[in-house]
Amino acid sequence: MAYLPAHDKRLLFVPIGGSGEIGMNLNLYAYNGQWIMVDCGMMFADSYTPGVDLILPDTSFIEGEKDKLAGLLLTHGHEDHIGAIPYIWERFGCDLYATKFTAELIKGKLKEAGLLDVVPLHIVEPRKPFELGPFEVCYIPLAHSIAEGHGLTLKCDAGTIFHTGDWKLDDEPLIGPVCPSADLTALGDEGVLALVGDSTNVFNPHSSGSEAEVRKNLIEMVQGMENRVLITTFASNVARLETIAAVAKASGRHLALMGRSMQRMLAAGKATGYFRNLPTLIDEDHIADIPRDKILIACTGCQGEPRAAISRIARGDHKRVHLAAGDNVLFSSKIIPGNEITLGALFNDLAKNKINVITEKDAFIHVSGHPGRAELKQMFEWTRPHCVIPVHGEARHLMRHAEFAGEMGVKHRIVPQNGDVIEISKSGLKLIDDVPVGRLALDGSEIVSVDDNGLAERRRASVSGVVTVSVIFDDDGALAAEPALALLGLPRGDQIAFYDMLVAAVENGLDKMKSSARLSDDDVENVCRIAVRRRCRKEIGKNPGVVTLITRREHIEFR
Amino acid sequence: MAYLPAHDKRLLFVPIGGSGEIGMNLNLYAYNGQWIMVDCGMMFADSYTPGVDLILPDTSFIEGEKDKLAGLLLTHGHEDHIGAIPYIWERFGCDLYATKFTAELIKGKLKEAGLLDVVPLHIVEPRKPFELGPFEVCYIPLAHSIAEGHGLTLKCDAGTIFHTGDWKLDDEPLIGPVCPSADLTALGDEGVLALVGDSTNVFNPHSSGSEAEVRKNLIEMVQGMENRVLITTFASNVARLETIAAVAKASGRHLALMGRSMQRMLAAGKATGYFRNLPTLIDEDHIADIPRDKILIACTGCQGEPRAAISRIARGDHKRVHLAAGDNVLFSSKIIPGNEITLGALFNDLAKNKINVITEKDAFIHVSGHPGRAELKQMFEWTRPHCVIPVHGEARHLMRHAEFAGEMGVKHRIVPQNGDVIEISKSGLKLIDDVPVGRLALDGSEIVSVDDNGLAERRRASVSGVVTVSVIFDDDGALAAEPALALLGLPRGDQIAFYDMLVAAVENGLDKMKSSARLSDDDVENVCRIAVRRRCRKEIGKNPGVVTLITRREHIEFR
Repeated sequence: MAYLPAHDKRLLFVPIGGSGEIGMNLNLYAYNGQWIMVDCGMMFADSYTPGVDLILPDTSFIEGEKDKLAGLLLTHGHEDHIGAIPYIWERFGCDLYATKFTAELIKGKLKEAGLLDVVPLHIVEPRKPFELGPFEVCYIPLAHSIAEGHGLTLKCDAGTIFHTGDWKLDDEPLIGPVCPSADLTALGDEGVLALVGDSTNVFNPHSSGSEAEVRKNLIEMVQGMENRVLITTFASNVARLETIAAVAKASGRHLALMGRSMQRMLAAGKATGYFRNLPTLIDEDHIADIPRDKILIACTGCQGEPRAAISRIARGDHKRVHLAAGDNVLFSSKIIPGNEITLGALFNDLAKNKINVITEKDAFIHVSGHPGRAELKQMFEWTRPHCVIPVHGEARHLMRHAEFAGEMGVKHRIVPQNGDVIEISKSGLKLIDDVPVGRLALDGSEIVSVDDNGLAERRRASVSGVVTVSVIFDDDGALAAEPALALLGLPRGDQIAFYDMLVAAVENGLDKMKSSARLSDDDVENVCRIAVRRRCRKEIGKNPGVVTLITRREHIEFR
Repeated sequence: MAYLPAHDKRLLFVPIGGSGEIGMNLNLYAYNGQWIMVDCGMMFADSYTPGVDLILPDTSFIEGEKDKLAGLLLTHGHEDHIGAIPYIWERFGCDLYATKFTAELIKGKLKEAGLLDVVPLHIVEPRKPFELGPFEVCYIPLAHSIAEGHGLTLKCDAGTIFHTGDWKLDDEPLIGPVCPSADLTALGDEGVLALVGDSTNVFNPHSSGSEAEVRKNLIEMVQGMENRVLITTFASNVARLETIAAVAKASGRHLALMGRSMQRMLAAGKATGYFRNLPTLIDEDHIADIPRDKILIACTGCQGEPRAAISRIARGDHKRVHLAAGDNVLFSSKIIPGNEITLGALFNDLAKNKINVITEKDAFIHVSGHPGRAELKQMFEWTRPHCVIPVHGEARHLMRHAEFAGEMGVKHRIVPQNGDVIEISKSGLKLIDDVPVGRLALDGSEIVSVDDNGLAERRRASVSGVVTVSVIFDDDGALAAEPALALLGLPRGDQIAFYDMLVAAVENGLDKMKSSARLSDDDVENVCRIAVRRRCRKEIGKNPGVVTLITRREHIEFR
């Protein structure tokens, strides 16, 4: 059954991901009986999903509406905006739209997934309006921490939406045009019905600062440095990579780029017109040939990812690059919440070897890609939206953003949650329904719900361990062999005395059952579980999961 | 074999815990053939030890020397200084020394562990020297974020050690005396051979700030607040609890204290002369009877601990206290690294209900208990140590502290690691040996190494899942029944088709073996493991652990 009546004249906004979390952005808009999707991102797994690589938005709602889905607009190339495409595109299967650099990154992903020839991907020009379903869409270039960040204007008879995407204001972004404030003012003059915008840095009362300032500081700092200099940053920050090239030039150092994602970004950037002024790069194999004070290495791993270049170098298990006392590692990056411990360990590994570590806490060598309140204020002044819907944030960010919009005189605000169906109209914002949403986990090669039983079992096992009991019964329910147990993850799990104790507990428990009860698998499982747990709690203070495998005489055939 | 020769005239320092980590402080000093221990702390477990509550220092070295261990000096009552006592005291079994409040906290722990009548615990007076083994010991009161923080002077013929403990400078600490700078200057005049000191906040170039400033700000803030006000903080911060009482008084609110550790600190404080000016406290049961703008609640959970009062209140599953829109929660605390995600979730839960959240990022409502570089400098100027050994820090903190001591003109510095045996003498610091150290985990009721196999199995299971295979063989090695499998933590683990596939893989693998090979348990285990893993990798992209339980005809007895 279709959700959207044909020619439905309501203008709807439905966040599927990114409202209530920072990551996996996926938003839907509907008008005149058709949907468009904006962004299709993933997020990284946390301790709730051990052994899982990626978290993806559950798109089952739009899968049921896919015949009315006109297309997917990608605002920019960060993983939290494009990362889910190769995993879930087939579920809704619409055309994709992106500017050239973003499209190049998407192509790389599709290629890896064997989908390059399957997914229709259209390259769009910024500031050139085009029709998509019921909307006239226009990509508005905005500064961000990747090349080709864009807001979107979505115009329809019901009014104009300005979907900001991820953005900031930067008078000297170094890559891309400065903010087209005249366009935004003109848009405000025409009238913006609703602004749907980035809440990430709403707790910063100031402006995010300029990439040019970072460049100036990095140049100054590296010019004063002896020995080797490594700078680690987010590979997707094209401006920062160009900055690092400028730093190399200004400090008379050769430049080397290390790490797979650096290479990928370099290739994507070159293919789309960036990195024109890059010097000849030193190959990883030849870094050792360059005098220590004549090399600048840009590398991946600014979040402490264990397999990234800088972590391997810090641990001393990188094949080609070894750092020594007096060398310098600059983290031109922020610490993403949750990575504090991993990064602390990396800083310690470097410090132990007397390598100087400089982070954004020591000097202004990183700048955020998201607007502080000073920038949000400016944007509200330009566009003068009738309504504001904060997205791209956890609950507290969205609440504060809505509150701030109120302080700035915006009449209508709503704090959305994933799945909310919000009607946008001249009379304001109305929560009219909610649709199913959720998180999916890429577990091995399978996509499962984050609430999947397998994941729950793993979490439980990681805390309490697991005992598997194998019992063999005669026809009459008598034990035909000593129970065999597999103890996993228990203290004293390798002590024979403890093993024997558990076997005795199982035998004893089964012994006390009526023989008829032993004919019931459920009853046997219960007794084994209780016996093992009771003994484990008493002996080792743990309450393990217990699984019982039952084999009966009728299943056994001896020759 | 004894490590220390009788009447050995070397002055030795051996950190067993706390050098290279923030937590589980345990330090040893030796002179004249005898040892003393300073502090005996624990630390909290992390993702490397899932399901573990506490991490404890491995004291096996001093266990071998316990006949020469004169006593254990506790500098103050924080868990990272006294928390391991009830778990490991019996291993070395010496007398304990502490000032009255610290002793009261230790008594509480000993009582819970049933050790109150077993452990000799001596209450010492600050600034009154006493003999312990080869040292003349004196407790020097220093400000810290708990009542009765102390540095220790340890005097022997070889010279004077000043062991700072955890400390800061505070002109208005509100609890305890201000820093006895004259004593420290006098100590410097006499000559300090070595200062062994707190490195926690060496990356703060300034001073930590005063508790009085926090009190002033909290009073001002709460006076301007409507509705309910909750303040959450570290329960052990007696001065802060007194501050909260002062805030209640100044804002005309009744005070309630919630949470078990608040009650424990209150009792310990009252028993030792603190909390004299506390107002009559409102019982948890009667909070609901007080008008919303007439109550101030102090509660536990400032690190987002899921079972603490504030987390339960925020989730709406506290029996007696419910917050509403417009209420206020103040986090008078810092975020301990690693707790960012949990605390972020707590902030979100509160924000969703339109409860105002104020943290130390918004206002100066918390002050650290550890010295910034301005305070370290002052301490060096007072005590003028010949040598400095930084402790109480991760590698990067210790490195920076040693470097800073050098900048301040201290001649001899060394960066210790747990287990280092460092000889302290007029000619400087010398690393002369290292002894076994490590971390122990309290897993259930068992104390195991953090590298215990059970823990490794749990970590592995949490990432990859586990398959247990039960096989029954005839005398000749033929399968006598269909293999039974228990699938734990696998995607598709509940799909019959997938289960059947794995059974077939096992049967197929066993089938291909020579029947003589099937008589070897090792060979059968190998084949089962390879068969299950190969199939799992192919089907679901996971590489589970595989355990095989083998039962042979000779073990089975049918009637």
